[in-house]
Amino acid sequence: MSEFLKPFLKKMNLIEIGRIHTPFKHATGTPIQPCRAVGTEGFIKINRLYVPGLKDLEGFDRIWLVFWCHRAADAKMLVVPYRDIVERGLFATRAPARPNPLGLSCVRLIGIEDDILRIAEVDVLDDTPLLDIKPYVPQYDNYPVQQCGWVDTVPQREVIADARFERQAPESDCP
Amino acid sequence: MSEFLKPFLKKMNLIEIGRIHTPFKHATGTPIQPCRAVGTEGFIKINRLYVPGLKDLEGFDRIWLVFWCHRAADAKMLVVPYRDIVERGLFATRAPARPNPLGLSCVRLIGIEDDILRIAEVDVLDDTPLLDIKPYVPQYDNYPVQQCGWVDTVPQREVIADARFERQAPESDCP
Repeated sequence: MSEFLKPFLKKMNLIEIGRIHTPFKHATGTPIQPCRAVGTEGFIKINRLYVPGLKDLEGFDRIWLVFWCHRAADAKMLVVPYRDIVERGLFATRAPARPNPLGLSCVRLIGIEDDILRIAEVDVLDDTPLLDIKPYVPQYDNYPVQQCGWVDTVPQREVIADARFERQAPESDCP
Repeated sequence: MSEFLKPFLKKMNLIEIGRIHTPFKHATGTPIQPCRAVGTEGFIKINRLYVPGLKDLEGFDRIWLVFWCHRAADAKMLVVPYRDIVERGLFATRAPARPNPLGLSCVRLIGIEDDILRIAEVDVLDDTPLLDIKPYVPQYDNYPVQQCGWVDTVPQREVIADARFERQAPESDCP
């Protein structure tokens, strides 16, 4: 490796461990969270190098996907989230356009066959680079809370996404 | 910017939005999850640029921290997790040494003052680069599950971390 490049590669660079495939080609019409995505299915193709790390995963009903929101627009610090009509601080929302466009979704794991994970209740755009899989463990991930800020104040209506956080650049600019 | 570097910078590079400070200087003795970290406190200093994005966050009892496990060793696809005594597939564990060493913790938010977030129930090493904050919303993050794979089979004893997933390199090699 070139000595010149080493400082860049040593930084916090991500690698794609797989690719998420779903029916959702654009943000508009995509469910905003797995809980709003009942009935949707997709699959993940894991890069060959990481397939041995899938051992024992099939026993878990749900898994966290951490992914790169490759179609997200540039981040703004104040946004109108899908579920509200007024501006909120970005970090008080789950909007995908963030300084680091990291997505986090708890999807249902249907089955694993070799390098393919079949998943359901998916709110992810097609062709999204996958960064990590973690088992969903209620003991680590379920916490009782008294208050959920602005979310407590908005109506519990069904919501799907629109193009407000989607990058308008051509696909070829995406990683 | 050098044309030569553009392809590298266009990739999935992360930026540090803040720094997490905790009492835990080394993996050994650190709680393995926030649920095992009752009574521990820490704070986050957010980079000035992102402070406006903290608006409305204070109403949430808990927040997700997504962070870079800067002290993690190189990933192996089979690991003996802290809570078990046999090897498991890496992606069926929450071990920090991963292809992308992304940590995910649901901590308690105590308060926010300007660029400082006071947090509790923290399982993160001191000086960890913070990548993202998301509000914890039970509707998005709590799912009933029937099975949790190997985790269902191990005793519910208290566990703290040891050095098995910690990089042995000097601190100066960390980002």
